[in-house]
Amino acid sequence: MTIRFGLLGAGRIGKVHAAAVGADPDARLVAVADPMPGAAQALAARHGCEIRAIDEIEAAGDIDAVVICTPTDTHADLIERFVRAGKAVFCEKPVDLSLDRVRACLGVVRAHGGRLMVGFNRRFDPHFRAVRAEIDKGSIGEVEMAVITSRDPGPPPVDYIRRSGGIFRDMTIHDFDMARFLLGAEITAVAATAAVLVDPAIGAAGDYDSVQVLLQTADGRQAVISNSRRASYGYDQRIEVHGSKGMVSAENQRPVSIELATAAGYTRPPLHDFFMTRYTEAYANEIAAFIAAIREDRAPSPSGEDGLAALALAEAALVSVREGRVVTPEGI
Amino acid sequence: MTIRFGLLGAGRIGKVHAAAVGADPDARLVAVADPMPGAAQALAARHGCEIRAIDEIEAAGDIDAVVICTPTDTHADLIERFVRAGKAVFCEKPVDLSLDRVRACLGVVRAHGGRLMVGFNRRFDPHFRAVRAEIDKGSIGEVEMAVITSRDPGPPPVDYIRRSGGIFRDMTIHDFDMARFLLGAEITAVAATAAVLVDPAIGAAGDYDSVQVLLQTADGRQAVISNSRRASYGYDQRIEVHGSKGMVSAENQRPVSIELATAAGYTRPPLHDFFMTRYTEAYANEIAAFIAAIREDRAPSPSGEDGLAALALAEAALVSVREGRVVTPEGI
Amino acid sequence: MTIRFGLLGAGRIGKVHAAAVGADPDARLVAVADPMPGAAQALAARHGCEIRAIDEIEAAGDIDAVVICTPTDTHADLIERFVRAGKAVFCEKPVDLSLDRVRACLGVVRAHGGRLMVGFNRRFDPHFRAVRAEIDKGSIGEVEMAVITSRDPGPPPVDYIRRSGGIFRDMTIHDFDMARFLLGAEITAVAATAAVLVDPAIGAAGDYDSVQVLLQTADGRQAVISNSRRASYGYDQRIEVHGSKGMVSAENQRPVSIELATAAGYTRPPLHDFFMTRYTEAYANEIAAFIAAIREDRAPSPSGEDGLAALALAEAALVSVREGRVVTPEGI
Amino acid sequence: MTIRFGLLGAGRIGKVHAAAVGADPDARLVAVADPMPGAAQALAARHGCEIRAIDEIEAAGDIDAVVICTPTDTHADLIERFVRAGKAVFCEKPVDLSLDRVRACLGVVRAHGGRLMVGFNRRFDPHFRAVRAEIDKGSIGEVEMAVITSRDPGPPPVDYIRRSGGIFRDMTIHDFDMARFLLGAEITAVAATAAVLVDPAIGAAGDYDSVQVLLQTADGRQAVISNSRRASYGYDQRIEVHGSKGMVSAENQRPVSIELATAAGYTRPPLHDFFMTRYTEAYANEIAAFIAAIREDRAPSPSGEDGLAALALAEAALVSVREGRVVTPEGI
Repeated sequence: MTIRFGLLGAGRIGKVHAAAVGADPDARLVAVADPMPGAAQALAARHGCEIRAIDEIEAAGDIDAVVICTPTDTHADLIERFVRAGKAVFCEKPVDLSLDRVRACLGVVRAHGGRLMVGFNRRFDPHFRAVRAEIDKGSIGEVEMAVITSRDPGPPPVDYIRRSGGIFRDMTIHDFDMARFLLGAEITAVAATAAVLVDPAIGAAGDYDSVQVLLQTADGRQAVISNSRRASYGYDQRIEVHGSKGMVSAENQRPVSIELATAAGYTRPPLHDFFMTRYTEAYANEIAAFIAAIREDRAPSPSGEDGLAALALAEAALVSVREGRVVTPEGI
Repeated sequence: MTIRFGLLGAGRIGKVHAAAVGADPDARLVAVADPMPGAAQALAARHGCEIRAIDEIEAAGDIDAVVICTPTDTHADLIERFVRAGKAVFCEKPVDLSLDRVRACLGVVRAHGGRLMVGFNRRFDPHFRAVRAEIDKGSIGEVEMAVITSRDPGPPPVDYIRRSGGIFRDMTIHDFDMARFLLGAEITAVAATAAVLVDPAIGAAGDYDSVQVLLQTADGRQAVISNSRRASYGYDQRIEVHGSKGMVSAENQRPVSIELATAAGYTRPPLHDFFMTRYTEAYANEIAAFIAAIREDRAPSPSGEDGLAALALAEAALVSVREGRVVTPEGI
Repeated sequence: MTIRFGLLGAGRIGKVHAAAVGADPDARLVAVADPMPGAAQALAARHGCEIRAIDEIEAAGDIDAVVICTPTDTHADLIERFVRAGKAVFCEKPVDLSLDRVRACLGVVRAHGGRLMVGFNRRFDPHFRAVRAEIDKGSIGEVEMAVITSRDPGPPPVDYIRRSGGIFRDMTIHDFDMARFLLGAEITAVAATAAVLVDPAIGAAGDYDSVQVLLQTADGRQAVISNSRRASYGYDQRIEVHGSKGMVSAENQRPVSIELATAAGYTRPPLHDFFMTRYTEAYANEIAAFIAAIREDRAPSPSGEDGLAALALAEAALVSVREGRVVTPEGI
Repeated sequence: MTIRFGLLGAGRIGKVHAAAVGADPDARLVAVADPMPGAAQALAARHGCEIRAIDEIEAAGDIDAVVICTPTDTHADLIERFVRAGKAVFCEKPVDLSLDRVRACLGVVRAHGGRLMVGFNRRFDPHFRAVRAEIDKGSIGEVEMAVITSRDPGPPPVDYIRRSGGIFRDMTIHDFDMARFLLGAEITAVAATAAVLVDPAIGAAGDYDSVQVLLQTADGRQAVISNSRRASYGYDQRIEVHGSKGMVSAENQRPVSIELATAAGYTRPPLHDFFMTRYTEAYANEIAAFIAAIREDRAPSPSGEDGLAALALAEAALVSVREGRVVTPEGI
């Protein structure tokens, strides 16, 4: 059985997912929808698929699954429409910036027995997966503490930041998901610090650019997240997990691994400077996992509930900063 | 001018400091005091110095400076006595476990124009100093965020833990000092999580063994500390400091730097398994810095006030854990 | 203009090159030839191309270039045929195991103004290319000495070894080419040692499995090669180049870059265990370079003469081992 | 029993050995001899020992062992005199630059049942020792091939080079000894290349500054040495040993292990820039090993015969360069 796909949104990330669908022998890209005719045409030409309106994809009998890459404020509505139409749905994170809206949307998904996967691509990075595999093998014993470093090469445009929901919901949300993925237990306490150190315009837009978060589970497992919107040396993405028997970590990735030694010392090139080159394999792997789940009639993972949990942690961190207290995400 | 030393306490760390004094061409160890005659004799024999009572050292005309390596609960009294006697004082951390007692002691030091240095040895580790030197050179621009990892190879005896004042005052205190050393500004907000994950006996003694702390300064600089009383792979001591232009970090140290590659992968030996072998050079350097300060009639650093500030952060972290809030150390 | 390709040989490496042609927007795979119908059909199905006999491809008006992936003993004949037919030719190394046959073949290529590229894929590895780019930028000053390490995960079947021409012509030949690529000057002296340490069956087949080679140019630049048919820890492929101002090196590649730290030490996974996963990008890049050269009407590189030069070094190394002397490859 | 030492030569390396003797609880420095009164006085003052003439040390009843740190051309005579006088002798390498003179000297040592240790300090470096310990434990199976890299930060004065016996006898000799130490078998074949790339004045003095050597044992084990008198990035001292089950290597050492990451990449400081700081521990360990051998009445190692074997390899390498052939050191 070949899974037949519709793609909603032919922008930057839409192109990446279209390529992943096209490369999978078990899937086929049937149609793309985008309000920008040029974007849709380019993608359709490259992948030999049709251009259709969203309505048409929704009603189509030759489409089994959709990939939603449209703007964030359309995600929840589209998820509900396509779940109702019986399609399997892969949606870029987040489902919505409002916890209430996410909860309502997931209620619809559940009511219709829908299949929904949320795009936390980092879970599919081969290095982070290998970390998780070591944990699952018991190599480090019982998981106790995680240290998650995530620093962007540079801040996005302030326009983007204004629509983003803020650094916790936009950037740290990946690290919240990673913490849950690595600790293997729900977070019950959140504390955060936040500041504007990179660009005052970010502060003027009501956001922060440099944040730290502590997380703790009911049984005392802990994680710490360190985020900045700026890292001159590239896209800094590291994790380390400590357990009762040891530690496992994933180092940064760089495009070329050479070293130059001169009187000035030993120099290696900077890291990747863009999330799409850093996470190339992760993007391909997550779509492959979605396709495999549909084929094997399993619930895809990470689920809508994983998306909700990460968003609740983002809310909790924001409350912690604003109110100067340790926050229980349940109460959010 | 040769600085003539008295040593109070001939135990483990006393021996280390005696060797540092002995190796310095500008200093001479004149006398040692210890209630255990065997310990004093061994040290006196090795360094060719006299054995005297504490009183005698206090009254001695041939002693310029003392190194206090006695149990913690004697530190504040001894500092006061020897400052009054006009001796320069190097005291192992902490001055006392009680903030009030420390404040009173520092009042005495100030009143007598005393010279007091507190033994935060890590400031003198060549690798951490090199990190600080890069900061001072401007290599990373304005300092923004620090990540401090400190994990002990294994927990101390529960007896020790009971007398230690708890993990924040005993272990994290070094990291609080390091955060101040690296951020170059006073901490105004502290949040912490804490748990017992290593040994329930530590919890039964009223302490924690796994903690994380967030620190923030008034201008938004941040630091995060991750501590555990256990690290199977050795004494894990890392720092990284992020600034507006880049990052500087110090990696772990291991006794031998070989690598074995087999079908099982590439393996390097564990780290140092003991703080005294890890920080051998730091201990020697701190005594040399104390001697140099006396000779050059400069105030030695880190000062008693540095000791007080780190202790206040420990108190603040403990309050944060107990009360579930972000704590301002000033109010402590 | 799209370059239209014929592929000769649908085996392991043929599939790799077919994928590279297929992925290039400037090229199209038109036909494949292989004596094994199953292999040809699988490849044709995957790439949507025709199956033709070699004669048909030779005579075809809709084919501009061929990729030769047939057995070594057919290379020289096929090169001559296709050059005569006016096709651009990419041929897997070596052109032939006999120096005389290679010389004759290259004579035919020259006589017909043919375009011939020899598949020294390592020149196109992104890491090794970055090393060369640093040299070209002058980062290390004048090149003086190179150290080339090349160790296979395990020996090939003895049957393969019997037909291979021996380790110098089969395996070291890549390192001879790399030495020329890095030193930027012709080799004038060769000395080698060789032994059978891995498997006596290799010795019984008249070959060696563990060899070392010294190379020197007329102006005194030097290179050393260390080869083994066995490396338990994976496919060991390193280069370092020393110059008047410094050194540039390329480290090994591994599929995942995690590290596990336990009481046994710090362990990273083994290296790639197969040349085709190690050099995935190199294979794609070399075909892209061939296509670009044809499109831009440039002589493709590495050339047939580069293939000849590397083979002459292999001969010289063999003579050095057999006769116990330093050999001048010119005289070979 | 305390071993009582005389020191012959109070120069740079004499001071290092004096400190090692002084630090050993089983040894005492009794007297120093040096034709420069100032040098002898400084050393005597620092170590509280007497100044004596060489004759007096030779005749002294209160001296058990001597450390010879005089110029090379006096070594063989002094070894003979002190062995005849019944003293244990530690002599800096080489025993002499002439193979015949070394053989004669060792004959005298043997005839008098003398105890002689030659100062190949690198065998006592903790990292290289750890490599050897892994070999001895069988971690890499049967030893097959070694790669030895040794590059000096910069060339010595040409005056020194003129008296040095040439790069093979002066510098590579350490690597010849290391190859024997690591391979655990005698070398039966030597091939070398050599050039002047660093400084024409070195060539004018009849020496080379850039050399490579291949070594092979009777059973086919191999080693390769790469030497240069210049390495802008510091004192480059690496070894790797390959065996039937894996590889063990020792990386370079640097004074501080920090890393700076900026837009220009990740930079670590240069290596040590001086052999005496790089090999501090090795120098101390070798004297301790000499003292232990005397105390325990064992033959000290490395022996005079080890010194002879390394010198013979240096001769063989020189012959290989001059005559363009693979040389058997036995015939030298």
